[in-house]
Amino acid sequence: MAKQGSPKYDYDLIVIGCGPAGQKAAIQAAKVGKNVAVIDRRESVGGVCVHTGTIPSKSFKEAVVFLSGYRQRSVYGAGYRVKSDIVMSDLTFRCNRIMQIEIDVIHHQLRRNNIHVLAGTASFVDKHTVSIESVENTTTKTAEKFLIAVGAKPRRLPDIPFDGKNIFDSDDILTMDKLPRELTVVGGGVIGTEYASMFAALGVNVTIVDARKRLLEFIDQEITECLQYQLRSLGVTLRLGEEVKTCEISDGGQVITRLRSGKIVVSDCVLFSAGRVSATEDLHLKKIGVKTDERRRVVVNEHFQSSLPHIYAAGDVIGFPALASTSAAQGRLVACHAYNIKDKRIESDLPYGIYSIPEISFVGKTEEELTEEEIPYETGIARYREIARGHILGDEQGMLKLLFHRETQHILGVHIIGEYATELVHIGQAVMGLGGDLRYLRDTVFNYPTLAECYKVAALDGYNKIRIAQTIEKRGDD
Amino acid sequence: MAKQGSPKYDYDLIVIGCGPAGQKAAIQAAKVGKNVAVIDRRESVGGVCVHTGTIPSKSFKEAVVFLSGYRQRSVYGAGYRVKSDIVMSDLTFRCNRIMQIEIDVIHHQLRRNNIHVLAGTASFVDKHTVSIESVENTTTKTAEKFLIAVGAKPRRLPDIPFDGKNIFDSDDILTMDKLPRELTVVGGGVIGTEYASMFAALGVNVTIVDARKRLLEFIDQEITECLQYQLRSLGVTLRLGEEVKTCEISDGGQVITRLRSGKIVVSDCVLFSAGRVSATEDLHLKKIGVKTDERRRVVVNEHFQSSLPHIYAAGDVIGFPALASTSAAQGRLVACHAYNIKDKRIESDLPYGIYSIPEISFVGKTEEELTEEEIPYETGIARYREIARGHILGDEQGMLKLLFHRETQHILGVHIIGEYATELVHIGQAVMGLGGDLRYLRDTVFNYPTLAECYKVAALDGYNKIRIAQTIEKRGDD
Repeated sequence: MAKQGSPKYDYDLIVIGCGPAGQKAAIQAAKVGKNVAVIDRRESVGGVCVHTGTIPSKSFKEAVVFLSGYRQRSVYGAGYRVKSDIVMSDLTFRCNRIMQIEIDVIHHQLRRNNIHVLAGTASFVDKHTVSIESVENTTTKTAEKFLIAVGAKPRRLPDIPFDGKNIFDSDDILTMDKLPRELTVVGGGVIGTEYASMFAALGVNVTIVDARKRLLEFIDQEITECLQYQLRSLGVTLRLGEEVKTCEISDGGQVITRLRSGKIVVSDCVLFSAGRVSATEDLHLKKIGVKTDERRRVVVNEHFQSSLPHIYAAGDVIGFPALASTSAAQGRLVACHAYNIKDKRIESDLPYGIYSIPEISFVGKTEEELTEEEIPYETGIARYREIARGHILGDEQGMLKLLFHRETQHILGVHIIGEYATELVHIGQAVMGLGGDLRYLRDTVFNYPTLAECYKVAALDGYNKIRIAQTIEKRGDD
Repeated sequence: MAKQGSPKYDYDLIVIGCGPAGQKAAIQAAKVGKNVAVIDRRESVGGVCVHTGTIPSKSFKEAVVFLSGYRQRSVYGAGYRVKSDIVMSDLTFRCNRIMQIEIDVIHHQLRRNNIHVLAGTASFVDKHTVSIESVENTTTKTAEKFLIAVGAKPRRLPDIPFDGKNIFDSDDILTMDKLPRELTVVGGGVIGTEYASMFAALGVNVTIVDARKRLLEFIDQEITECLQYQLRSLGVTLRLGEEVKTCEISDGGQVITRLRSGKIVVSDCVLFSAGRVSATEDLHLKKIGVKTDERRRVVVNEHFQSSLPHIYAAGDVIGFPALASTSAAQGRLVACHAYNIKDKRIESDLPYGIYSIPEISFVGKTEEELTEEEIPYETGIARYREIARGHILGDEQGMLKLLFHRETQHILGVHIIGEYATELVHIGQAVMGLGGDLRYLRDTVFNYPTLAECYKVAALDGYNKIRIAQTIEKRGDD
C-alpha cells in the first residue's frame, strides 16, 4: 500500500518505545498507510517486556519448572529434580535464546510493515519534534502525531545500596551470577511473588516481606490463601504486615534486612520489587506541556490522549494494569483513534495472569467485590485432584473456582490457581464475554483427560449448592 | 436421600461395566434416589479407560514427553533427554500410580452415592436377571432397568500369533518388558498413531502400516499432513496404502511383517491396533433378544435404548466415537431418560482429542467437509512459532487453524496440532457453542504469553484474508 505521507513532517507517527503498546500502535498505523517510525533506546526492540520483564521471567519460570522437576514431584517424590546442581546459566541460557527469537519476530514485523526503527534516547524539542541521541550522533525528527510508550522501571528507594551483586531490583535480578542460598524479596506484588516462587521451587530459602496483610491484594482471597499455603509448603517464609527499616550489606557479604518490628532477616541476596515508576524522565514532557503525575505517569483521557491531543500515551507508562496483554490492546486502540479506523470492539473482561509457581489467572470479579456490591452469587469449585489430568500432570493442589449469579446463573468470575491457569481462564472468559452461563459449562463435553474438565466439575458443584439451598428454602416455606 | 426401592427387584438399575459411561449413569441415577449396582469383571472399577486405555496411554505419554525431553529439544538441542537410558519401568511406574488414584477416586464417588459394586462376569439369565460369576461364587441379581456399558476390546485377527512378548495389541502393549529398538505399528487410527508417536519420541524406530492413504482419516487434511511431517521428522516410516499379508516371529525372535506390495518390515515388536469389537460376547444378549451387529455392538435408538426398552447401552459398546468424554455424556443421558430427569441440555459440538506427540484436537467441521457441503469458508492460521509462548514451551511447529464463514464470520471449525491442543480447543468450542464469531477472538485480550493468543493471531490472519479478497472483488467490479 502506498504511504500517504505528511509533507510537513518526517513521519505521520513517531512511537517512542517499542514494547507491546508501541509495536501494536506502529503496526496498526502502518497497515492503514501511515508513515511510521519507532524510537527505542536499546540497540534492539522489544521494550521491558522482551528484555528484562515478561519474556525473561516467563522463560526463567519454564526452565525452573522443568529443571527443578517441580511438576514431577508428586509422582516421583519430593526430592526429585532433573538436574541436581542447577546453576544460573542453566536457567538463563534458555531466556537469552527466547529473547533473541522474540526480538527477531518483532524486527521482522516492523520491517514487513515498512516501519523505521531509530535507536537512541528520545526527548521532545517542541510539540512536533524529537531529538534522538545515540552513541554515534544526535538527530531530530518531526511527526504529526506521537505515542509515548516508554514503559516503566523499578522504583529504587534512595536508602537501599543496590549493587547488582547482593541487592537487586526486578530488572537486574536475572543477571545474578549464581543461585543464592537465601533470598529476601521485598514487595509481595506480582513481580515479587513470581520471582519468590521460582527461587523457592529451585530450593532457595525465600523470605517475602510486605507491608500489606497478604500477597497480591487484588486477587480473590481464597486463591491468595491457596498460593500462600503452597509457597509455605515450598519453604517460603512470609513476613506480611511488616515494613523494611534498613537494608545493608555486612562485612561478610550477607545482606541484613531490619524490619520495623525488630526482626532481622539475613540472606545472600535481596530483591526489591516495591513498585515501578514510568520511564519518562528523559522525554522533557514538562517543556512541551504534557502532564505527568507523581510517579511520572503520563495523564491520559479515555482515548489515551495526553494533555496535548496529538501526543498519546499507552502501556506501562500510564500505569495500571501494566500487563503486556493490555498494553498491546491499548496500542492498537491508539492507532484506531488517531487515524479514525472504524473498529467496533467487543468489550470483554480483561484476564489477569500471574506467572508464579503455581500459576494464577482470573477474569471478572472476586468474592470480596461481589460481596461488597451485594450481588447474590454462589461458587462452584473443582480441584485438580478430582480430575484425571491433574494427576497425570502431577498438580494435585490446583483449583478452579467459578463465581456465578444465584438467580441468572451468569458467570461473574473465574479464578484459577495451578498448571495452565493462564491458558484455561480463556474458556471462562469466552463464556462470560458471550453471555453464556453455568449451563453451558455443565453441558459441554470436554476432552478427557484435560484440565478444562474442571469447568464442568465446578459447574456441577455450583448446581449442587444452589439445589441444596433451594431445598432448604422450600422447607422453610412449608 | 431415602432410596425409593423397587420391591419387585433387587435394584432399580444395574449397570454392567464401570467405565466412564457406567459410572456417570450410576451416579446420576443414584442422585435421584435410585437403588443402583454396578457389575465389573475386574477386581477394581474404571473400565478400559482406567486400566488399559485412556489413562495408561495418557500417563505414558506424559512420562514420555518429560523423560525424553521432547519439549526441550528445540531449546537444549535435538539430542537432549532427561534420562539417557529410559526403560519401560520409568514410563509405566507413573501409569500405575495414576491408575491407582483414578480407581480410588471412582470408588469413593460410587461409595458416596451408595452404589453397590459387584465383582464378576455378568450374563443375562432373563430380561430382568443377571448372573454374576466370580472366582468365589455365582450369584443372581434382578433389576428393573439395565445399562450395558461393557466397552470394547482390540480386534485380534486370527492369523496373527499374538504372544504378549513380540506381538501386542493395544491392551497389552504397555506390559512389554523393555523398549524395542524397532516397532511396527499396524493400523494408523487414533490408538496406533498415539503409540507410534510416543515410541518414536523415545527414539524407537517406528514403522506405521495402514491400508488407508493417510493417518487419522477423519481429521482435517492439513493437520494430518502436519502430523505426518512431524512423525517423519521423529524418524517414523509411513507405509500408507499398504496391507499386511502375514506376520510371523523368526527363529531369532524378530517379527517379520510381509506387506501385499512385497515389502518386508523387520522389527523387535509389532503393535496391532486394527479396530475394536464390543465386549458383549459373555452377556448372552441373543438369549433375551437384545440386537447386536457384526462387530458385536449393541444397536440403540436415540435414547440409547436397545431393542428391549428397559435395557440401555452406552459408551464404546455402541461404537463411534468411542471417546471417554462422549461415553460419560451418554451415560448421564441414559439416566436422565430412564428416570425422566428434566435436563434441557445445550447441544454443542463435540471435541475430539488425539493424544499423540504432537497432540491434536478439533471441534466442528474440516475443510474437506465444508468444501463438500459448499459452504463458503475462509481460514485463519496462527503458528506457535509466531507467538512468545510457543518459543518458551519449545514447540515451534504447532499451529491453530480457524475455519469461519466468509459472510457471517461464524466459527465453523477449530483445528489444533501442538502442545496443549486438547485444552486449547475448548476456547474455540465455547465461541462456537455460544454463537460468537471471528470478531470475539480478534477483540479479546488474552494473557501474554499464552498459546491461547493463537486464537487472536488466527482471527487477524482470517480478517486479512477476507479483506484482501474483498479488495480484489471490488477491483473486479470497477
